Amino acid sequence: MNNIKNTSPLILITNDDGVNAPGIKNLAETASKFGDIIIVAPDKGRSAMSHAITVETPLQLKEIKTRKYTTYSCSGTPADCVKLAIHEILDRKPDLLLSGINHGTNTSTSIIYSGTMAAAIEGCLNGIPSIGFSVNDYTAKADFSAANKVIETVVEKISGKKLPPRICLNINIPAIEETELKGIKICRQADGQWEEDFVKRTNPNGKDYFWLTGKYINNEPEAKDTDEWALKNKFASIVPIYIDYTARNIIPDFKLLFKY
Amino acid sequence: MNNIKNTSPLILITNDDGVNAPGIKNLAETASKFGDIIIVAPDKGRSAMSHAITVETPLQLKEIKTRKYTTYSCSGTPADCVKLAIHEILDRKPDLLLSGINHGTNTSTSIIYSGTMAAAIEGCLNGIPSIGFSVNDYTAKADFSAANKVIETVVEKISGKKLPPRICLNINIPAIEETELKGIKICRQADGQWEEDFVKRTNPNGKDYFWLTGKYINNEPEAKDTDEWALKNKFASIVPIYIDYTARNIIPDFKLLFKY
Repeated sequence: MNNIKNTSPLILITNDDGVNAPGIKNLAETASKFGDIIIVAPDKGRSAMSHAITVETPLQLKEIKTRKYTTYSCSGTPADCVKLAIHEILDRKPDLLLSGINHGTNTSTSIIYSGTMAAAIEGCLNGIPSIGFSVNDYTAKADFSAANKVIETVVEKISGKKLPPRICLNINIPAIEETELKGIKICRQADGQWEEDFVKRTNPNGKDYFWLTGKYINNEPEAKDTDEWALKNKFASIVPIYIDYTARNIIPDFKLLFKY
Repeated sequence: MNNIKNTSPLILITNDDGVNAPGIKNLAETASKFGDIIIVAPDKGRSAMSHAITVETPLQLKEIKTRKYTTYSCSGTPADCVKLAIHEILDRKPDLLLSGINHGTNTSTSIIYSGTMAAAIEGCLNGIPSIGFSVNDYTAKADFSAANKVIETVVEKISGKKLPPRICLNINIPAIEETELKGIKICRQADGQWEEDFVKRTNPNGKDYFWLTGKYINNEPEAKDTDEWALKNKFASIVPIYIDYTARNIIPDFKLLFKY
């Protein structure tokens, strides 16, 4: 059990780029103005892991004692990190879960593949106000200035509040200077998808193998209420995500179609 | 490129229990009444992989020539299988994607962790009518009698039709005899979550490791319109899943809260 026992808000921080990524360090530093920080993050990059959990092998946890904030690295996925933090490391439920700052966007349907957002969704499933942050720069040298400002603004606004049940936030921020940021927009996720183009190669023994590549296609580039539009126009986007995926409005039609 | 080129409906079949699981064999056999079958499935069990995709290693594909239906095993996740099938193996878009029959339920929020449903969602992202099937029996000896009947009924009803845009189906079926099945219900996903209880062990070198275990908690066992209720009462459940997770009804409130 962790020894964080005072009465400050407890903020659990994780990501999918691994415990050493610049993004998570920025997130912890900015969030530390609002509470006690504990970091539980993958021991290496775990991008595109979505909500995978580790069921066939055991998990290892290691406390990294040289860090400014209490920090554990974990052999598992982002969702594993959240489960271990809540059920094994901490002796009280965190007041807030922040995931990121992801190196690369998680707009539109990219949320489906995102380990960053899986961690936020896992927090949400456990009744913790949970937010994922991402910037649109894959490199380690991404500019987190605007992101840090957005984190500060958002965490301040929800401090001491709960998010509505089963709702978490997906926040994407341009990797720009704070002064260039035009504002924060509440958005819906854009309608789009990744279109794949596998690169086929042949190994020295004559066997084919395939590298997954792809590009994101926005099906509605003109729509101004989407996260894609916001990000392209130097706004940060906040998409509230509901973790019940039932398409309720279609149920009456389907009751007729599938009458049995 | 695959040599399936006639004008019958083309049905792509995958799963997350691996190409040798009894569930996928039942699904292929039942679906074969409605079109040409091609199976592209993981070379081993890939449960709880959610929508993970393989980006840091290449993928291998192997045609298994001894099977009744054209069958490829793939080194990747269920989502990888769908991407490879669509973009590398097939020369036309499948008319239908069926995933499963999963050994174990994917009701309620279990869909978040499910490789079976990730494959269906990946098909949906690619504009293919897509359905995941699961039975409530984890064993290889599960009774697929009712499941086969439900597959036949559902596939027949949607044959030649499209599902509404960005909607796929999550179907759970009791592992019982066909005659015991009480019917098919269109449901919403139950409000619930997995509660974890890690088993902590110590290895021979003195290091701790953790096995993830857990049990599902249904927060609304009395509600009769949920997939959990249907399954417990010997009905098959169909939950229409919308792949845009935006919580639209909360956007006006959040526009006030996060004014910046």
